Amino acid sequence: MVKNKVYSITKIVRLIVLKIESKENKLFKDTKKLKEKKWRIKNKKYLIEGVRIVEEAIKAKVKIDAIFLEEDLEDARINAFLEGQSFNSYVLSKELFKSLCSTEAPQGIIAIVDLSNSIEKKSGNFYILADKVQDPGNMGTIIRTAHAANAKGVIITKGTVDIYNEKTIRSTMGSIFYLPVIEDQDLEFTKKLIDNGYKLLVSALDAEKNFFEEDLSGSYIIAVGNEGNGVSDEIKDLATVKVKIPMPGEAESLNVSVACAIMIYEKVRQNLSNAIE
Amino acid sequence: MVKNKVYSITKIVRLIVLKIESKENKLFKDTKKLKEKKWRIKNKKYLIEGVRIVEEAIKAKVKIDAIFLEEDLEDARINAFLEGQSFNSYVLSKELFKSLCSTEAPQGIIAIVDLSNSIEKKSGNFYILADKVQDPGNMGTIIRTAHAANAKGVIITKGTVDIYNEKTIRSTMGSIFYLPVIEDQDLEFTKKLIDNGYKLLVSALDAEKNFFEEDLSGSYIIAVGNEGNGVSDEIKDLATVKVKIPMPGEAESLNVSVACAIMIYEKVRQNLSNAIE
Repeated sequence: MVKNKVYSITKIVRLIVLKIESKENKLFKDTKKLKEKKWRIKNKKYLIEGVRIVEEAIKAKVKIDAIFLEEDLEDARINAFLEGQSFNSYVLSKELFKSLCSTEAPQGIIAIVDLSNSIEKKSGNFYILADKVQDPGNMGTIIRTAHAANAKGVIITKGTVDIYNEKTIRSTMGSIFYLPVIEDQDLEFTKKLIDNGYKLLVSALDAEKNFFEEDLSGSYIIAVGNEGNGVSDEIKDLATVKVKIPMPGEAESLNVSVACAIMIYEKVRQNLSNAIE
Repeated sequence: MVKNKVYSITKIVRLIVLKIESKENKLFKDTKKLKEKKWRIKNKKYLIEGVRIVEEAIKAKVKIDAIFLEEDLEDARINAFLEGQSFNSYVLSKELFKSLCSTEAPQGIIAIVDLSNSIEKKSGNFYILADKVQDPGNMGTIIRTAHAANAKGVIITKGTVDIYNEKTIRSTMGSIFYLPVIEDQDLEFTKKLIDNGYKLLVSALDAEKNFFEEDLSGSYIIAVGNEGNGVSDEIKDLATVKVKIPMPGEAESLNVSVACAIMIYEKVRQNLSNAIE
């Protein structure tokens, strides 16, 4: 139960915050559920933890349902970015706070992000398709690179790692708040793009053409696949263009987020070169 | 002490292996020291753990001083790649084995790699310089990409993450066994390359030229810097060419291994395009 007593923890932030002390508190219990993927999907909400990522979320103006602070927290940076804001804020006992954390060094701040207001698609002329990528770090890095390169959005297929897990979010370095992610379970979205003239670019080791020999003007979907197995047959069958990334040094493969970045930036290079001509 | 009794663990490998049961055993104690960086440097040896990476090391024909197997291990894949080999092999009790491991799921195999035979430089016309990169995953991925692209080697500066820590090694996916890594403490090696006509390419947010507008033919050192602070002033002062990686999507920055890969592959693209002309 949220106690009626109101704490004004002026040392930390000039916000009126409520203190939650019981693990039976409804908000606390509902929040804790968001650690599980199924609840995130059901409620269209997810947790972020750590000073930098909460700061990024506020800067990006995403909808924040609540902010939780660890009791006795003193952090000048948190103080600074919460100043003048009016989030629903709660102080949690150390024990309750810890039970919400996924990271070892949570820095005393956790927030609930509401996904129900979807992010607008960007103006770029390409999407990234991440097909069954497994590693949260790779997935986050792909979203970060896609954002930097002005992709319209990132499409993920069934079997791709949960993009709202703590590690993925952290690896995006805030880009998750700017770029729409489309969960394309049945590939309907991808197929529709192709019907509308998008070319689906897939990298394959056995392709003949190098990625930079392909004319990439126009609308593209750039696909990368699973760390061990590459792009699935389902996506390969839909591919309009197959290219390879040459490896003159003869390593067996590239990291998936690296391979993705190399193709993305060839698209950026050609976009910018065409714009200059 | 290595017991005199000789075990022939035919179920696992057709090797004669010795069993170490005491933590006072000298080889065991010396091996355990290699978990610390200072001992790795002193002895020019490091540990690798896990089936895949040991398999890669054997394939790459690096010098392996010893292989340690966990007792009661049964693994068909290990069996297959150790078959016919003649490494110094030892079986360790579960407890001793565990105390050598850095990973949670060590898969029952650890090896000591000897660095005294240095790896030959590759034929490519560029080096990568990793300046105070901190994250082991990023460092490993940079080495992997450099290998794939046929860089001559990777130069690391003082303050760069230990490249022989378990996580870095794992992220290289075996490339660590193929590509020379030069620890350039005083930058003498880098300066010598520049004196010999190498251009030092540094990416800087305030540079005017995009990386792909630069003619990258000839010999290059491609530099990337620390995750938070970028390339240090010391390296910037040595730079021959400053370029930027455009971010039309206006993210704040790219992951360092991604930025590195984008520049490396522009060099590869230009090398291959020039070769065709």
